[in-house]
Amino acid sequence: MTLRAVETIAKKRDGHILTEAEIRALVGGYVDGSVPDYQMAAFAMAVYFRGMVPAEVAVLLDAMQHSGDVVTWEGLPWPTADKHSTGGVGDKVSIPLAPAVAACGVAVPMISGRGLGHTGGTLDKLESIPGLGGRGHFNTQLSLADFRAMVGRLGVSLIGQTASLVPADKKLYALRDVTATVESIPLITASILSKKLAEGVGALVLDVKVGSGAFMKRREDALELAQTMVRSGQAAGRKVTAFLTAMDRPLGTHIGNALEIVESIEILRGGGPEDTRELTLRLGGEMLRLCGVAANLAEGEARIAEVLGNGLALQRFRELVVAHGGDPAVCDDPVQVLPRAPLQFELRAWQPGVIAGMDALGYGLAAVRLGAGRNRADDAIDPSVGFVLARRPGQRVAQGDLLVTVHAADETRATAALADLRAATTLAEAPGELLPLWLDTVYE
Amino acid sequence: MTLRAVETIAKKRDGHILTEAEIRALVGGYVDGSVPDYQMAAFAMAVYFRGMVPAEVAVLLDAMQHSGDVVTWEGLPWPTADKHSTGGVGDKVSIPLAPAVAACGVAVPMISGRGLGHTGGTLDKLESIPGLGGRGHFNTQLSLADFRAMVGRLGVSLIGQTASLVPADKKLYALRDVTATVESIPLITASILSKKLAEGVGALVLDVKVGSGAFMKRREDALELAQTMVRSGQAAGRKVTAFLTAMDRPLGTHIGNALEIVESIEILRGGGPEDTRELTLRLGGEMLRLCGVAANLAEGEARIAEVLGNGLALQRFRELVVAHGGDPAVCDDPVQVLPRAPLQFELRAWQPGVIAGMDALGYGLAAVRLGAGRNRADDAIDPSVGFVLARRPGQRVAQGDLLVTVHAADETRATAALADLRAATTLAEAPGELLPLWLDTVYE
Repeated sequence: MTLRAVETIAKKRDGHILTEAEIRALVGGYVDGSVPDYQMAAFAMAVYFRGMVPAEVAVLLDAMQHSGDVVTWEGLPWPTADKHSTGGVGDKVSIPLAPAVAACGVAVPMISGRGLGHTGGTLDKLESIPGLGGRGHFNTQLSLADFRAMVGRLGVSLIGQTASLVPADKKLYALRDVTATVESIPLITASILSKKLAEGVGALVLDVKVGSGAFMKRREDALELAQTMVRSGQAAGRKVTAFLTAMDRPLGTHIGNALEIVESIEILRGGGPEDTRELTLRLGGEMLRLCGVAANLAEGEARIAEVLGNGLALQRFRELVVAHGGDPAVCDDPVQVLPRAPLQFELRAWQPGVIAGMDALGYGLAAVRLGAGRNRADDAIDPSVGFVLARRPGQRVAQGDLLVTVHAADETRATAALADLRAATTLAEAPGELLPLWLDTVYE
Repeated sequence: MTLRAVETIAKKRDGHILTEAEIRALVGGYVDGSVPDYQMAAFAMAVYFRGMVPAEVAVLLDAMQHSGDVVTWEGLPWPTADKHSTGGVGDKVSIPLAPAVAACGVAVPMISGRGLGHTGGTLDKLESIPGLGGRGHFNTQLSLADFRAMVGRLGVSLIGQTASLVPADKKLYALRDVTATVESIPLITASILSKKLAEGVGALVLDVKVGSGAFMKRREDALELAQTMVRSGQAAGRKVTAFLTAMDRPLGTHIGNALEIVESIEILRGGGPEDTRELTLRLGGEMLRLCGVAANLAEGEARIAEVLGNGLALQRFRELVVAHGGDPAVCDDPVQVLPRAPLQFELRAWQPGVIAGMDALGYGLAAVRLGAGRNRADDAIDPSVGFVLARRPGQRVAQGDLLVTVHAADETRATAALADLRAATTLAEAPGELLPLWLDTVYE
């Protein structure tokens, strides 16, 4: 007897646990077209309400992971690891982290995404790096064969999704986006992990953001997602740690594609803002620990700090840029090499006080208005525009002190963005309630 | 700003009350194709979990009702009423009721459906009546213009759905059927009432069945559906009463398309089994009361009893059969005129005792196995096959007493049906717990 999709939907709708065969038949049917979008949409909504037990998530994840090509790294001389962030404002950590970890002897074959809405995307940031000789830009659209070759040579490569990897997720993600079924922890877990598992890495560090600029606004939801992902990744035989980190304010000082490359290079030179550096050290250190390259997190963090301090991480990034067709001069003089916005405007403190908050969501949406981000997946972005924070939440300011520099393409957008930033910034007599940078850790 | 379907879905998913504009945009978009099936499927599942308040149901109903043609009865010399049953086994009440009510001076423009699964359909039963001169059969596929003309002349006509009436329901019903979203009271209410309101009747009597053979197995669910339908029908300006009636055993003595015409004609001659007659009197009497033709239900029932007794109801049925192209001789000798199955088999009491139950669902499924019903909407049916109950639940029998005669096309199916019937029949020492025929009434 064939498993009928409508019966699987009804079973989940009624709160029952699905069998492995039912889940595999549904995912397989969806990929081959015999299960239409409308049945998958009803199923996704039933999962939204009823959830899934860990065993169901594990099967869903496995069925999605194997819906297309799966990469393997046999013969590679290094262990492999990756890092995934649920996305935020100013979160450029992948860019310094990947070459730093590679410089410590753990390969990082990273498949990343683009920005959407108020959250930026690693690919967009990398593509702001101009091509060598002024032609094109850092190329993230490599074939899987070129990706494999580059990881084999450099221990690191950062590319975009390919058509052959996890087609079930591509189809399902697009459907969830238009059917109000994105915010489901089992479906989020299956979507994120199916892609990371298909990359073939042995270890995975997850950065689950919490706060207004995060996908998960509430700490308890983020913790549930983190726990589900760690449990599911472990069930699939990988080493996984998840950190819950603050996204109530932007990360670091630079927001916007080329501007975030500037900050990334500061980090790779051993400098940069403290929070971005801390995340790079801890997430990278944990990747080393999970791979057995460091005995514990402290040793891992020390290794990362070492390669940030001695130029090895920057050197690896330079090689990465060259391999992806970018201009390595970006490593030496990023401000000159990267695209620059023609206009700069300043937001200054309109009263004395403490910066009680710089709302991450507000700053992210202002960046979209400025042209740094997308409202729709096919919107064009301007790599040059964005913000640089001169002061950070928690700092005391005098009236007239510079808070933010806005890098804009035109005055109209700059004016709108300045108004958005002012509305998203809280000056008060007393410090506000900011989230600690590190909220929690879910170990395997 | 356009109302985006995904936002409407998310709002319902999160348990909020939708606005009139949101519901109308969704239904309108679904009918014109700008809202795809997958969004409507996700919406239907969200409604399944979150429900709708009466005001939302009223708007959904109105938007669906006006998605196509709407019939009006201005200029008709009689008030108009209709009856709807949620479906059961052996429920042929519409067939004697419509001409009887029309004979009392209330027009009944009835648009009916076909049988699906274990429940029979009025259209299938009527189509078992052969055509005049042996050509075709009672024709239920009239145009709306012919339907209007026949109601104007006879005060009654029974036809099938037309393409132009309530296209939103046709599309949505087909979608719900394959997305496990049939069992939602707001969606059921909107589906049933949008069709009945588009018929343009002023009064509506609803027969909400309860028990194993009913759509609603539990009394509390049936009551909730009845209350929602009465409230929604009233909000739309119609007079509505709902009765909750028993469907734990078949209604009447005859099950199967032509066989149910035989029983219907017995009722129209003033005879027939007590339960079918009681339903015909009460539902018909209430239609007369709602239309102001009878001062109260007792007077309405007496009027119906009168036209069943004096031949006027049968005469109206005869005119109806002729107008629909059927052979009026069916009224005089139904057993000779109607198609007859070639084989008869008997189920006899295998032990002495009381008939504690004849499970309606079991009897209905046995009828489908015999060929009287459909598993899928495009299955062919055999109008001649079915069952005649010689004894009814609650009666005491001796071993060997005839319980049921099976009318079958072949011995294989008959054998299977006999086994089904035996399994669905309970002979016990003490009477079983049967539902009372009348469980409840929801008045406007």
